[in-house]
Amino acid sequence: MIKNLPAARYIISSLNFQRLFLFLCLYFAFVSIRAQEKIQEKEQPQLKDFTQFVDPMIGTAKMGHTYPGATVPFGSVQLSPDTDTIPYAVNGRYNPEVYKYCAGYQYEDPTIVGFSHTHFSGTGHSDLGDFLLMPTTGELQLNPGTEAHPESGYRSRFSHDRETAEPGYYSVMLDDYNIKAEMTASTRVGIHRYSFPEDAAVSHLIFDPMHGIYNYDGKNVWTFVRVENDTLVTGYRQTTGWARTRTVYFAMAFDKPILEYGREQYDNRPYNGFWRKFDQSKNFPDIAGEKIRMYFDFDTKTDKELQVKFALSPVSTRGAVENLKTEIPHWDFDRVKKEARELWNRELNKIDIEPAGKQEKINFYTAMYHSFLGPTEYMDVDGQYKGLDQNIHEAKDFVNYTSFSLWDTYRALHPLFNIVQPKRNADMIKSMLAHYDQSVHSMLPIWSHYANENWCMIGYHSASVIADAIVKNNVDFDTGRALEAMTTTAKVGYYDALQYYMDLGYVPEDKNRASVSKTLEYAYDDWAIAQAAKKLGENAIFEEFSERAKNYRNVFDAKSGFMRPRLSDGRFKKEFDPLDTHGQGFIEGNAWNYSLYVPHAPAEMIELMGGKEKFEQRLDSLFTMELPDAYFANTEDISREGIIGNYVHGNEPSHHVAYLYNWTNSPWKAHDKIRMILRDKYKTGPDGLSGNDDFGQMSAWYIFSSMGFYPVAPGSTKYALGSPSLNKAVIHLENGNLFLISAINQTKENVYVEKTVLNGKILKDPFLDHHDIMKGGKLEFYMTSKIPNLN
Amino acid sequence: MIKNLPAARYIISSLNFQRLFLFLCLYFAFVSIRAQEKIQEKEQPQLKDFTQFVDPMIGTAKMGHTYPGATVPFGSVQLSPDTDTIPYAVNGRYNPEVYKYCAGYQYEDPTIVGFSHTHFSGTGHSDLGDFLLMPTTGELQLNPGTEAHPESGYRSRFSHDRETAEPGYYSVMLDDYNIKAEMTASTRVGIHRYSFPEDAAVSHLIFDPMHGIYNYDGKNVWTFVRVENDTLVTGYRQTTGWARTRTVYFAMAFDKPILEYGREQYDNRPYNGFWRKFDQSKNFPDIAGEKIRMYFDFDTKTDKELQVKFALSPVSTRGAVENLKTEIPHWDFDRVKKEARELWNRELNKIDIEPAGKQEKINFYTAMYHSFLGPTEYMDVDGQYKGLDQNIHEAKDFVNYTSFSLWDTYRALHPLFNIVQPKRNADMIKSMLAHYDQSVHSMLPIWSHYANENWCMIGYHSASVIADAIVKNNVDFDTGRALEAMTTTAKVGYYDALQYYMDLGYVPEDKNRASVSKTLEYAYDDWAIAQAAKKLGENAIFEEFSERAKNYRNVFDAKSGFMRPRLSDGRFKKEFDPLDTHGQGFIEGNAWNYSLYVPHAPAEMIELMGGKEKFEQRLDSLFTMELPDAYFANTEDISREGIIGNYVHGNEPSHHVAYLYNWTNSPWKAHDKIRMILRDKYKTGPDGLSGNDDFGQMSAWYIFSSMGFYPVAPGSTKYALGSPSLNKAVIHLENGNLFLISAINQTKENVYVEKTVLNGKILKDPFLDHHDIMKGGKLEFYMTSKIPNLN
Repeated sequence: MIKNLPAARYIISSLNFQRLFLFLCLYFAFVSIRAQEKIQEKEQPQLKDFTQFVDPMIGTAKMGHTYPGATVPFGSVQLSPDTDTIPYAVNGRYNPEVYKYCAGYQYEDPTIVGFSHTHFSGTGHSDLGDFLLMPTTGELQLNPGTEAHPESGYRSRFSHDRETAEPGYYSVMLDDYNIKAEMTASTRVGIHRYSFPEDAAVSHLIFDPMHGIYNYDGKNVWTFVRVENDTLVTGYRQTTGWARTRTVYFAMAFDKPILEYGREQYDNRPYNGFWRKFDQSKNFPDIAGEKIRMYFDFDTKTDKELQVKFALSPVSTRGAVENLKTEIPHWDFDRVKKEARELWNRELNKIDIEPAGKQEKINFYTAMYHSFLGPTEYMDVDGQYKGLDQNIHEAKDFVNYTSFSLWDTYRALHPLFNIVQPKRNADMIKSMLAHYDQSVHSMLPIWSHYANENWCMIGYHSASVIADAIVKNNVDFDTGRALEAMTTTAKVGYYDALQYYMDLGYVPEDKNRASVSKTLEYAYDDWAIAQAAKKLGENAIFEEFSERAKNYRNVFDAKSGFMRPRLSDGRFKKEFDPLDTHGQGFIEGNAWNYSLYVPHAPAEMIELMGGKEKFEQRLDSLFTMELPDAYFANTEDISREGIIGNYVHGNEPSHHVAYLYNWTNSPWKAHDKIRMILRDKYKTGPDGLSGNDDFGQMSAWYIFSSMGFYPVAPGSTKYALGSPSLNKAVIHLENGNLFLISAINQTKENVYVEKTVLNGKILKDPFLDHHDIMKGGKLEFYMTSKIPNLN
Repeated sequence: MIKNLPAARYIISSLNFQRLFLFLCLYFAFVSIRAQEKIQEKEQPQLKDFTQFVDPMIGTAKMGHTYPGATVPFGSVQLSPDTDTIPYAVNGRYNPEVYKYCAGYQYEDPTIVGFSHTHFSGTGHSDLGDFLLMPTTGELQLNPGTEAHPESGYRSRFSHDRETAEPGYYSVMLDDYNIKAEMTASTRVGIHRYSFPEDAAVSHLIFDPMHGIYNYDGKNVWTFVRVENDTLVTGYRQTTGWARTRTVYFAMAFDKPILEYGREQYDNRPYNGFWRKFDQSKNFPDIAGEKIRMYFDFDTKTDKELQVKFALSPVSTRGAVENLKTEIPHWDFDRVKKEARELWNRELNKIDIEPAGKQEKINFYTAMYHSFLGPTEYMDVDGQYKGLDQNIHEAKDFVNYTSFSLWDTYRALHPLFNIVQPKRNADMIKSMLAHYDQSVHSMLPIWSHYANENWCMIGYHSASVIADAIVKNNVDFDTGRALEAMTTTAKVGYYDALQYYMDLGYVPEDKNRASVSKTLEYAYDDWAIAQAAKKLGENAIFEEFSERAKNYRNVFDAKSGFMRPRLSDGRFKKEFDPLDTHGQGFIEGNAWNYSLYVPHAPAEMIELMGGKEKFEQRLDSLFTMELPDAYFANTEDISREGIIGNYVHGNEPSHHVAYLYNWTNSPWKAHDKIRMILRDKYKTGPDGLSGNDDFGQMSAWYIFSSMGFYPVAPGSTKYALGSPSLNKAVIHLENGNLFLISAINQTKENVYVEKTVLNGKILKDPFLDHHDIMKGGKLEFYMTSKIPNLN
């Protein structure tokens, strides 16, 4: 290694032993690092640029509830424009208008209020919108103004013609100020680049911590800001809302010094500490209060650009500063943009498709993009994060995630992760177990975000996510502890009528509303627990929860043929309209569609409902019946666009329904339905989504179904086969294997599958096993336009 | 050491080498620990029980603002009864009635609202009163009720006949419930013992985090509570008030299980997270909101006692739980009480006195007690604490303290600490330097508590405290960093007209009120910085600040003979009443008394004021002039009881004034004044203090003066001699030395000192050097009733 021996001798003679040792250590460390780098370079597969097919605008109009801004896969920062500030509640009463603004952005809006750093993707209730920044020029205005009169505040008009949204990058022209705004992000840091117009000698940056999504008077609990020096500001924002006790810390750095700054305080807390010693309104670096807005002025006379790095932390301002320094230690905006694109391509390349057309390619990779927007990383670069107990914890051997919209995502998103994101999915489960440890209820998450449980929706579907990972051998977590967490969660009597469910075998409608939905979902989750227990050899638990899993039977009314609310005295509730979505024992659905929710036992359910033929007719009716608009009007999370007959694709409880044909004598009937949904309910363009994307669940349905299979019952390794819309797909598995899917004779008309061949063998039943995917292999669908005879 | 050789051989033969090594390690560790313990046992000096002379009730009536509750020296927990809930502000306007309740307790009050865990001692503005507990029986009431109608709420009538207050222990009979309440404390944990009456089968414990001192609607920012299990509750309380952004964490443990519990929420924040899944009002363990009150019910049918341990933390609930487990890992109330008494005796024994009578002994040891109530420890048992930047810091090589009432305590309390608490005083300076490091202003504390700067009063007297320690060689801190902190603090232009002071040499009254007081105090602090610089050999700084120290001259008006407000154009303000305390350029004083505030240059000041004779007459007038009541009416912190003529002992700016006679031709004139003050302004009984004790400053004056000397200008090693009221005092110094003080021929009439002898040598001047105390030695005052000829 040291070829030049005289030189080596010289070195040895001129150094003492310790120095020589140090030298050799450094030399070998260098050699070893270089070797590692070479291996990594070699291991990096050649990535295709799939980001070009992603359109973050899809879902930003109507009910998609996605945001167009800049973020990286599973990133903590979602830096995105907010187009309005509709309050969640006015005078303490819910304002239904707010629903449009779950992600802060509505495509039809003519103005942008500013750019905030946190957004949920596709949810049907909301929060966040932290730390809005808005560059302005001219007269300083600290209020946001109104859509009708943007000139009355700091907001600006904008046009989609001068707006760009790409994975990891967003830009827009703020027309009222003639400012070009660009933004990109790393995991914990957003970076803004503002280009000011020629005539702006001094420009303002508005910082509005009073802004928020699902805002209301009272949401801001406390804001704390320190202007540390002329290029660094730190602080935090504490809110109460969907998350009751939420604090987000920040560090904001500028690439040029602040000229001057100031704050307005809008609360009337009589703070007496200052003894009138200071003018707090201007250039006073120590700011706190309930309602604060600030401005920072910059010299833009010759240097027309201002860059702002904005780091978040769940722990502290110190954590935010460290995140900032670690993730973006430079001011090269374009480098961050490029790295964000690379991160996206790394994830998007996990499935390489050959679509029928460009539209399908856009839909597919945008669905992939939406599927990887959450859950989001929730810890500092050093692994510290705030727990549910509001203490600081350290994620020692995992990445901690937050924002678990589990009632949605257990269905297809986490199953998708078990295929293309197994490492992250295991870490998500570790995060859920940490949540369980920190929960004063000893419960796994229901819908949790930012160290809070918001309890949204029903069931305890963490159990499904964990069980699915266990049966699929994705078990880089303590499975024993996980099983304990699941069974403990399933026995918290005071949780949402669970004691009644345990005592009576169903939730009685006279004790708790949406009783049928709850009974059905508890029963499914119980089955999932049983599957995990079986896999882990815990037979007593398997038996116990298999018994509970049958509880769906207790709400089946053979007379009406529907699942139907029962009272605590055992009788069915008398008044009953199976089409009505209100007060009938269901949540976000009616008896027609929700009665089909027995994903873990379709055969038994079909038996209960009168056998295969009768059930087949029932499904046929579901997809074809014509309903007056009134039936789904005013039902949250259900919009006209998502409906086919009485089937509601825009909301989750129906997502497995088309695949139920696989348990009838006519599985082929699923095929045209699935192809119709893929074609009609997912489109390109801002209004392309037919319902809330729900943190990737709608998109995960698309990804599975377009490849020809779907996880009807997570917790089973079986996927129901459908009808692929793609020509080909190659799944690059983390274990290095490849799974190839191809649709032979694929055309728009050839929607039926006449046979399915796995690794050269015809599949007898319309099901695929997860382990066959993970082993790698080849799945061939033979497409036809004729109704096949599969039996 | 191993005497039994066969046994040893057996052990050796039966163990492998590793086990043997481990065994030997353990053995030697045991031997070494035992030896250490023996040394410690030996080193413990025989302590006298001086706690019997402490009466915590002194100062609890009228304006003393002390509290009678249980605490240990410099303890973080001050567990004390609060007798009313007067709001600080009503409809946003200051309510002057609140002033009586700075420490939560007023002796004349007939009811006790409950027992809260944090109290300032003797301050003239306030905060705290965290986490009120109140045991009740009968009908559950969650509101505190009123003094006039205690039955309308949870409060109770009480009588001083059935009330006991001792160092570290407080008890009272709650007459309305017939409950005996007792409490004691360790540093971070309070322990309550409630004895319920025969007829109380179920008893309530009210937990009221809405209660607070200097409370107002809006002070409660957020409260978070978790009922972790049936004997442990954790949480925090976040308030805004004197401290703007303050959070205190707690852990509360019961010695018997909760039967049931509940909460009322009084705010109207529309929290929607619960989706009506739970009855949150009862037995729901996850509680948060702006305004919360709770109750816990206990079975008191047979076991009549309930004990509650209540730990505080500045960091987290986890920190509070650790503090609880570490400090009081048992339920032995009497042991905690005994240990608290021992801790007090250890501190009180630092000065062993022979007083003239029992009253003097009570006054002296109560003054010692009050002097050791603050600053208070502010960190967890593991050294973690919240800093001014709201980040968590670790006190690596010191105890972190908070609650620095420096405008008061720099005068005599910290100088007293340099004699009897040098270690703690150095740690307090380290705490101040940590504050400086964390300050966004780069300023040392002005008046800081609980990770907040409340900016109360004027000057930057941290400089005095640090300089005093430096010149007195109490320098277990980084003196270079300390000097830098002092000079940096003294140059923050935007702080309280400091830029004007630096530019003009005085604060102009047209730019900032109380301009003369500020100019005088800045000048003194600058002198203190100069003294520190001199001691550290930093001559440039010495010169610079010595120059600034002369600025008192700039506000002296030779014409009127008073310090007088000047305007920014250089002229003196025309309208001027040297007796008025309002709008004359002074704060909490008038030109008559505040003009004497040049503690660092009395000789020069006397020269300026016309020489020694004229000045002597001036002092004579000060003490004898008769003033109409109106002059001091409505002047905060000044009450009739504290006044002698125009001399105001009840407030700090005059504390050095009697000693100024030492710079005249008649030092003896100080003697009868000092003895009069010692006799008349300090009494036993609840109304014994003639003004706010101000976190020990009033008491420290007593301790110094009763021993015959006083630090007129901290930052100098010189003490001015006065007239001791004690017969003897022995100061037990931390360095092991003893300093003996004796007053020979001491009687009530013999108030004059005819000579003072230090270690056998007559002192020529009426001054004593600090180093002579620390070396140990003997100081003898020869007392006489005749006016001595000292010149």
